[in-house]
Amino acid sequence: MSSAGPLARHLPIFDAALRAALADGPPELLRLSRYVLGWESADGSPAAAGGKRLRPLLCMEVASACGASPVDALPGAVAVELVHNFSLVHDDIQDRDLLRHGRPTAWQLIGEAQAINLGNFLYTRGLRQLAESRAPGAQLALAMLFEAVERMVAGQWLDLAFESRSDVTEAEYLDMVAGKTGALLGAAAGIGAALAGAGREQVERLRQWGERLGIAFQVHDDYLGAWGDVSATGKSTSSDIVRRKKTLPVVLAMATGAGEELRELYRSPAEDPAHTARIVQLLERAGARERTRELANSFAREAEALLASTGLTAGAAGGLYEFGRLIVERDR
Amino acid sequence: MSSAGPLARHLPIFDAALRAALADGPPELLRLSRYVLGWESADGSPAAAGGKRLRPLLCMEVASACGASPVDALPGAVAVELVHNFSLVHDDIQDRDLLRHGRPTAWQLIGEAQAINLGNFLYTRGLRQLAESRAPGAQLALAMLFEAVERMVAGQWLDLAFESRSDVTEAEYLDMVAGKTGALLGAAAGIGAALAGAGREQVERLRQWGERLGIAFQVHDDYLGAWGDVSATGKSTSSDIVRRKKTLPVVLAMATGAGEELRELYRSPAEDPAHTARIVQLLERAGARERTRELANSFAREAEALLASTGLTAGAAGGLYEFGRLIVERDR
Repeated sequence: MSSAGPLARHLPIFDAALRAALADGPPELLRLSRYVLGWESADGSPAAAGGKRLRPLLCMEVASACGASPVDALPGAVAVELVHNFSLVHDDIQDRDLLRHGRPTAWQLIGEAQAINLGNFLYTRGLRQLAESRAPGAQLALAMLFEAVERMVAGQWLDLAFESRSDVTEAEYLDMVAGKTGALLGAAAGIGAALAGAGREQVERLRQWGERLGIAFQVHDDYLGAWGDVSATGKSTSSDIVRRKKTLPVVLAMATGAGEELRELYRSPAEDPAHTARIVQLLERAGARERTRELANSFAREAEALLASTGLTAGAAGGLYEFGRLIVERDR
Repeated sequence: MSSAGPLARHLPIFDAALRAALADGPPELLRLSRYVLGWESADGSPAAAGGKRLRPLLCMEVASACGASPVDALPGAVAVELVHNFSLVHDDIQDRDLLRHGRPTAWQLIGEAQAINLGNFLYTRGLRQLAESRAPGAQLALAMLFEAVERMVAGQWLDLAFESRSDVTEAEYLDMVAGKTGALLGAAAGIGAALAGAGREQVERLRQWGERLGIAFQVHDDYLGAWGDVSATGKSTSSDIVRRKKTLPVVLAMATGAGEELRELYRSPAEDPAHTARIVQLLERAGARERTRELANSFAREAEALLASTGLTAGAAGGLYEFGRLIVERDR
């Protein structure tokens, strides 16, 4: 939870609202939702294994920075968290990922077909929270959420399409990340502002701030996936490389002289640690380590400039500035 | 298109609105949406291969019966058709179906992972049509749509869960159908009424009417899947039986003395026509043919009684009565 930093104070209220949103419905779908959200183990026993809740906490903090109560942002906060989990459940099917937060992914537990249903349930339940709100900013907030999901789906489409390509450019990759990760974090921020009753321009700037932050977050994640400290991330070093994921450093290095050897190694069995070490070496020689760091910092700086342009005082937006810095300084 | 009967007159306006809803967006997702909706072949050449558009046409006819212009119902009509197609795209992945309307299903064309994305895109784009409407009844309409999708997802969950069970009861099966098929047809009717500005009680009665009709529709479909006329349906006779689908007649017969032989035959290779013929014979001996017919007619009668209770004149609701009769009299 450390990366939520100062935002973690919203967690108890948020958690209660999220539980309330899942208080009734089809028992099996609710049970699996509790598993995915980390509240329960597969056997129904209590657990504490969920994600960091970055998006909803950000949504609430933005509302607070805009002078409203964080409680006003709850329908949006719950909506973005459920939409985020919907995307994780479907992504894990699409990417054939076996583990999330160290536990079997939903489709591993219930099969692909039912996991598609589970994702659709989480998505629908999430949207309802916002659609049923009568707050003045709710319709704008819902429109932002739909826009974000369309961009998220298009981003996921690109991500899958990139798997079979070895000529993806930096610009294409960042465009994919803007959709897949930036759009929803941006919507979380924009929705918080809209539900706080902020004006259209301030809402849009905060949305853009969140989107840049989301891109910085993912680029930094790609950095950690190649050079993260094993003791901090809890994953093996170079976990993305071991899984042969086409992250930003790999995309960058493939466009250089190292590309040919790299493509060759990416087709080799993932278990060989010598191959993994050689890949990381190639990435570094290609300058991908520095460029990835540079891009993460540059998006974070862009975000900070956008935040400064919102007209919010440093006092009101203190938590948002701090959150922005944590995004690219975290080591896991 | 024959089963749309008198409602088909709304088709040109509806088609234009549906095309307008898909005028912009990610090019690949739009291209595949046009394929799924039957406007294009896989190679992008023009086609005329879509579904019957029953839900949107019903939505428009209900609005008209309530004294509004069918045009007022367009945001809802487009929404329900896109939501319907979202469910078909995901269902085809889940059921491993290879063909729909005689053409390869989406996942056959683009793989499961991208077909999940395509479904999510169609769903989101559909919801947006209604969410962006400023009509007075739009919020009620959207709430009905969300409720319907949750029930549809729960129905699909049950349908998949039933595949591995041989003790499904008639009541359980009908409950599944009410969710999987009834909910969205009910929502189509209720949304048409809501967008026409009808009062809450009339909206709810028309929603219930549509739901009963949806159940009658599916039960009759199950009938045709066992005893449909090959020349009319364009499928081989007993197409559901050949595919070893657990339709209502099968569920009914499994609970009788024929159950054991039936279960045995359902595990046998689907290609053997002698097995298919024997299965149909067992269904008839178990009385499943009559009971299925009886249930379809009984839901259709219930629907007609609900329609009579709405306060709409026979003149205004003439198209709705005719549509209701066509549902259980169609031979394909």
